Amino acid sequence: MSNKIRSEMDELRRRLQIVNDLNGAGAVLYWDQATYMPSGGTAARGRRMATLTRLAHERFTDPGVGKLLDALQPYAESLPADSDDAALWRVTRRQYDRATRVPADFMAEITAHASESYDVWTHARPANDFAAVRPFLEKTVALSRGYADFFPEIDHPADAHIAEADYGMTVAQIRPLFAELQDALTAMTDVISRREPVDDAMLRQAYPIDAQQAFGEKVIRAYGYDFKRGRQDLSPHPFSIALAIDDVRITTRFKERDFNEGLFSTLHESGHAMYEQGIDPALAGTPLADGTSAGVHESQSRLWENMVGRSRGFWRYYYPRLQAAFPDQLGRVEEEAFYRAINKVMRSLIRTDADEVTYNLHVIIRFGLAMDVLEGTVSVADLPAVWHARYEEALGVRAPDDRDGVLQDVHWYGGLMGGSFQGYTLGNIMGAQFFAAAVAQQPAIPEEIARGEFGPLHEWLRANIYRHGSKFTADELLERATGGPLQLGPYLEYLRKKFGEIYGEL
Amino acid sequence: MSNKIRSEMDELRRRLQIVNDLNGAGAVLYWDQATYMPSGGTAARGRRMATLTRLAHERFTDPGVGKLLDALQPYAESLPADSDDAALWRVTRRQYDRATRVPADFMAEITAHASESYDVWTHARPANDFAAVRPFLEKTVALSRGYADFFPEIDHPADAHIAEADYGMTVAQIRPLFAELQDALTAMTDVISRREPVDDAMLRQAYPIDAQQAFGEKVIRAYGYDFKRGRQDLSPHPFSIALAIDDVRITTRFKERDFNEGLFSTLHESGHAMYEQGIDPALAGTPLADGTSAGVHESQSRLWENMVGRSRGFWRYYYPRLQAAFPDQLGRVEEEAFYRAINKVMRSLIRTDADEVTYNLHVIIRFGLAMDVLEGTVSVADLPAVWHARYEEALGVRAPDDRDGVLQDVHWYGGLMGGSFQGYTLGNIMGAQFFAAAVAQQPAIPEEIARGEFGPLHEWLRANIYRHGSKFTADELLERATGGPLQLGPYLEYLRKKFGEIYGEL
Repeated sequence: MSNKIRSEMDELRRRLQIVNDLNGAGAVLYWDQATYMPSGGTAARGRRMATLTRLAHERFTDPGVGKLLDALQPYAESLPADSDDAALWRVTRRQYDRATRVPADFMAEITAHASESYDVWTHARPANDFAAVRPFLEKTVALSRGYADFFPEIDHPADAHIAEADYGMTVAQIRPLFAELQDALTAMTDVISRREPVDDAMLRQAYPIDAQQAFGEKVIRAYGYDFKRGRQDLSPHPFSIALAIDDVRITTRFKERDFNEGLFSTLHESGHAMYEQGIDPALAGTPLADGTSAGVHESQSRLWENMVGRSRGFWRYYYPRLQAAFPDQLGRVEEEAFYRAINKVMRSLIRTDADEVTYNLHVIIRFGLAMDVLEGTVSVADLPAVWHARYEEALGVRAPDDRDGVLQDVHWYGGLMGGSFQGYTLGNIMGAQFFAAAVAQQPAIPEEIARGEFGPLHEWLRANIYRHGSKFTADELLERATGGPLQLGPYLEYLRKKFGEIYGEL
Repeated sequence: MSNKIRSEMDELRRRLQIVNDLNGAGAVLYWDQATYMPSGGTAARGRRMATLTRLAHERFTDPGVGKLLDALQPYAESLPADSDDAALWRVTRRQYDRATRVPADFMAEITAHASESYDVWTHARPANDFAAVRPFLEKTVALSRGYADFFPEIDHPADAHIAEADYGMTVAQIRPLFAELQDALTAMTDVISRREPVDDAMLRQAYPIDAQQAFGEKVIRAYGYDFKRGRQDLSPHPFSIALAIDDVRITTRFKERDFNEGLFSTLHESGHAMYEQGIDPALAGTPLADGTSAGVHESQSRLWENMVGRSRGFWRYYYPRLQAAFPDQLGRVEEEAFYRAINKVMRSLIRTDADEVTYNLHVIIRFGLAMDVLEGTVSVADLPAVWHARYEEALGVRAPDDRDGVLQDVHWYGGLMGGSFQGYTLGNIMGAQFFAAAVAQQPAIPEEIARGEFGPLHEWLRANIYRHGSKFTADELLERATGGPLQLGPYLEYLRKKFGEIYGEL
């Protein structure tokens, strides 16, 4: 490496480090707001976070960054594609080009609108008042289309938003994949709905919250979540957030009479967090020190929550321990009855409470609605009614109001429309594909899980996924780790086997 | 106001708001680090905080700010001196001129050195290893002198540092004031040391920490600390910090067998915090939204800790309540015995544990040593020995080692030398002067305190001190609130009366 190149790389890293520091500081402010901030702090906090975001964006889109990227192109292209410097150049170039396409004023309008819209939604949802959010949602749709206009090369307006979350995916790829998945899930759900229902009443006894928290903490420690480089707190909506590679925190909420809520959200968030904790320290301070896509991130949360945490093997080890923690509640409940209860399949109204079989139907409804709205075939005014119709059609249930209908999720009310749901289902699909590859390469993994040993699985995921951060796209990661592109097969096979055992052949 | 002036004022406020946002974000990071941050977060956190500080400094010292100040001078000088705009211009001008005197590179060297030096001290103190910090302290002295060289108009190198913390004060003013105070305190201490010692053994029983915390919280709520705009947490070293005017937090530490520690540090920090919570919201986002000096800040913490919280009247109301909270520990202890115990005077080694009479002797020793070191009459190498000698001379005690000697306080190891101690004693003096003025104007205040009513005192302090933020200097505030300049009289009178009642005439 010549001195000139070295000093240009240093300068690029220096500039990226400042952006990373501003974003990392913003993460601390976000975490604090969601956990401990007194209510009086709200107004100033919103402004401070907006300032940090704006300064980070200004610094990242500075023409000096573009000049360095231009100057470093020959060097980057001379390196093996999987070298850190090549990946750093490639990912920064891509993000820089996307970020500089959209004028700062337009971005500021989006940010201001998103914050206002979110505020209105927080009041409108409890009041079941779609009329209050309607004008804001209409503006969201207009801004989402306007944003897409800065990317004239794309086929569908949602592609601009999907690329932000799941780079490499497009509407054209997702639609057939989701259609095939929907057919399969609908068929499974239909069969299951005709079988004997599972009794899960034991999950709604009183489970003291301290003991729930202690149990969850013990499990995620065993998973390999590092409490020296993270912590767990309570918040109204569970989340995971990286304040730095060595400070990745999770939050959970517990309900005394809903055992699933606390434990499985803990396991879910620990999966997100272990991904970020596992990133190679050499990537710190750069755009590579981040999960590579919403889908890959979700693959890890769902893998640890469901494929591990709701598996027979896991409970073979943990159920006696859970019984010891809750002898009054579970002392006389058989392991098999408990296992079936936490895996109960039921058509329901709320996405975040849905079981593994029906969950993706909720996501696919939302994805489809967003596409139709962006294309203009469904108007915002009609959205509440169409929501109900699609739920009846796909799940056979109808919410009594808009609160649990079109107002259910924050996503459309806190940003743009079109890129925020596909990651959940892509994550489920990828999670199964990664897990199948891990087991194929290390067949002892299921037995290890049944002994409460998660080290080998964690290590496989770290080596194949976590450490790379954003060096590789989701497609590249899949190719490297599983030997092929995204496939639905392992996921459907996983669901059929697991739920076939519980409900009879599917 | 012309449109031009209006738009220049708006632009100045906009720029200052960004600086305020960066500093406010830095405060969140600091608070988090001191309370909840996992140990893994340390390295990234230090860098992120340094980045925020640097960006805030860059933005504040931007030549654009100077041009706006120049352009706005005629307007500012046309206003009454106590108008918000005049004060904003005046204080920003002063801070800008000071900040732009010192080159950014020199400031960066100071920041880097301070952080390194602090790290070394945290290990050197427990190891009683002055040799480890000596080279760092020598560099601190060199940097402190070098910093002062950018202010050639001052009489003493420490004046540059005193002006940062206690603008308007100089070594020439402080020295005779401290000399007079030292004589008076030494005389009082000598007399008291010949009187019957007070028994404070009851304070070293086991006081369950939850109950200590609940009691302290009840008191500061009654004081008027607003928990909707603040919160209390635990940290190794208690502090108060403004994340915003509407989010001012305090931390405390409790010791089970040292009753004084938890309660009085809670009351102390609540005084700092109520000052910041009481700033006029119209000043938010500007340099005026801050306490005006270290001395005035300390006047408020000491006033609420000592003049209120260690007063007879306070305990007339609260002692029965404290007995109810700790019946086993205090049920058979008389109010008078408890009152004497929390006000026990004793020559001791540790500044932060010292009583009201001897406390300032600790401060005056440190202030004098810093002056001598900056003047070159005491070398850093000799500092440990001179420390012990001065303690023997002024307090008649000698620490067994440097841990409780020259290594005792962080101040010289976490920044520059020469401006960090005078504020404590200035605060004690001013606190008595403010309190005397409040009582002179509202003679019912002592009786109100004895009924647990703190509203009128709080309101007087808010109206005369808190709401002004940094609009007025300490001298101006004293003049406006007490009708005269800084005076030692009220403080000595307060001490003589209070401790004369306990120990016999002084």
